[in-house]
Amino acid sequence: MNNELITSLIEEVTRRALLETGVEVEASGRHVHLDRETVDALFGPGYELTHFRDLSQPGQYVCKERISIVGPKSVIHNVVILGPIRKKTQVEISSTDGTALGIKAPVRESGDIAGTPGILLLSAKNSVQLSEGLIVAKRHIHMTPADAEKQQVSQSEIVQVKINGDRPLIFDDVVVRISPDFATYMHIDYDEANACGFKKGIRGQIIKKTKAK
Amino acid sequence: MNNELITSLIEEVTRRALLETGVEVEASGRHVHLDRETVDALFGPGYELTHFRDLSQPGQYVCKERISIVGPKSVIHNVVILGPIRKKTQVEISSTDGTALGIKAPVRESGDIAGTPGILLLSAKNSVQLSEGLIVAKRHIHMTPADAEKQQVSQSEIVQVKINGDRPLIFDDVVVRISPDFATYMHIDYDEANACGFKKGIRGQIIKKTKAK
Repeated sequence: MNNELITSLIEEVTRRALLETGVEVEASGRHVHLDRETVDALFGPGYELTHFRDLSQPGQYVCKERISIVGPKSVIHNVVILGPIRKKTQVEISSTDGTALGIKAPVRESGDIAGTPGILLLSAKNSVQLSEGLIVAKRHIHMTPADAEKQQVSQSEIVQVKINGDRPLIFDDVVVRISPDFATYMHIDYDEANACGFKKGIRGQIIKKTKAK
Repeated sequence: MNNELITSLIEEVTRRALLETGVEVEASGRHVHLDRETVDALFGPGYELTHFRDLSQPGQYVCKERISIVGPKSVIHNVVILGPIRKKTQVEISSTDGTALGIKAPVRESGDIAGTPGILLLSAKNSVQLSEGLIVAKRHIHMTPADAEKQQVSQSEIVQVKINGDRPLIFDDVVVRISPDFATYMHIDYDEANACGFKKGIRGQIIKKTKAK
């Protein structure tokens, strides 16, 4: 075999091996989850949000409708609404967005919104002042039970994830959530994506913080 | 001793020990370094930039003058000029800025601008179209020879740096630059600062990638 062939074989085998290990990373842009009450207030009683595009997580989708979020320092227009509706309205932004808006949002796991700041939501029809719900989403991994077994991680385990992007780094304190309703993806926000040189399809290698039993 | 006293003693000793180890981290906002030719074009022949505030690196300072940088998608106003003037004009932005401007800037070490995109600079008086010089600064550590000896790192060594912020992570691929003209600080940009939960005064612990000799 010539050198060129050997090189391309090595590259292909490495690529396939890496596909088998680790998890694909997705960068989440700013978005809102709305509850029934907020949808009613923003779009009218009983309004049904329009499915626009499926997300990687089964049953989750981008809606056609967009809203604005209003802070003391600026307004961010065209914010994506994710469906289906949730029990509690929640707005997920990056720290960069928080600085632009003029509101400091804490880093929280999705759903953990007690004591977080509120924000003003704006549709073409109406506005809603939230009393809480503005967060920077804590980085996390959604994982199927099968992948959890392969990766030898358990429910709510905290792991490190190594990203070999243009700006390699190791995310520490990454929580793993396991459910048969999930597809296996790590979610980071755009600040984290920019900090690691994220490109679509990039994969993270899981590093266990405690030895596997 | 009561428990409260023990707790506060432990906290104080830990704090002092950590001050002795690792390096202080600074987040660099977007800024430009200008060469003589660009200063002349933007502010008039022979113009001297006005010292406004010293930076942590000896001899480096923020100037009173500001400029705008213009991309195809947006303009960023009020961009800081750092003095003194350099041999080559260089514009350092975050990836977030690049997305807003509509120009993708590569991650580069300061000074390594060959083949990078240009950008339009704008003062109240004039504009200058750069043919190159737009970069996202590669994370790095400035270090004094004394601190390099203490940390057991050598010129241009690549290390990891662990940051225990609100969003703990380990920066990989961090280059150490050693000079008696430096003060010891790690520099990251605002995307990286937001990704690790940066707060002023935060310190990073150096992790060697190869065993110390």
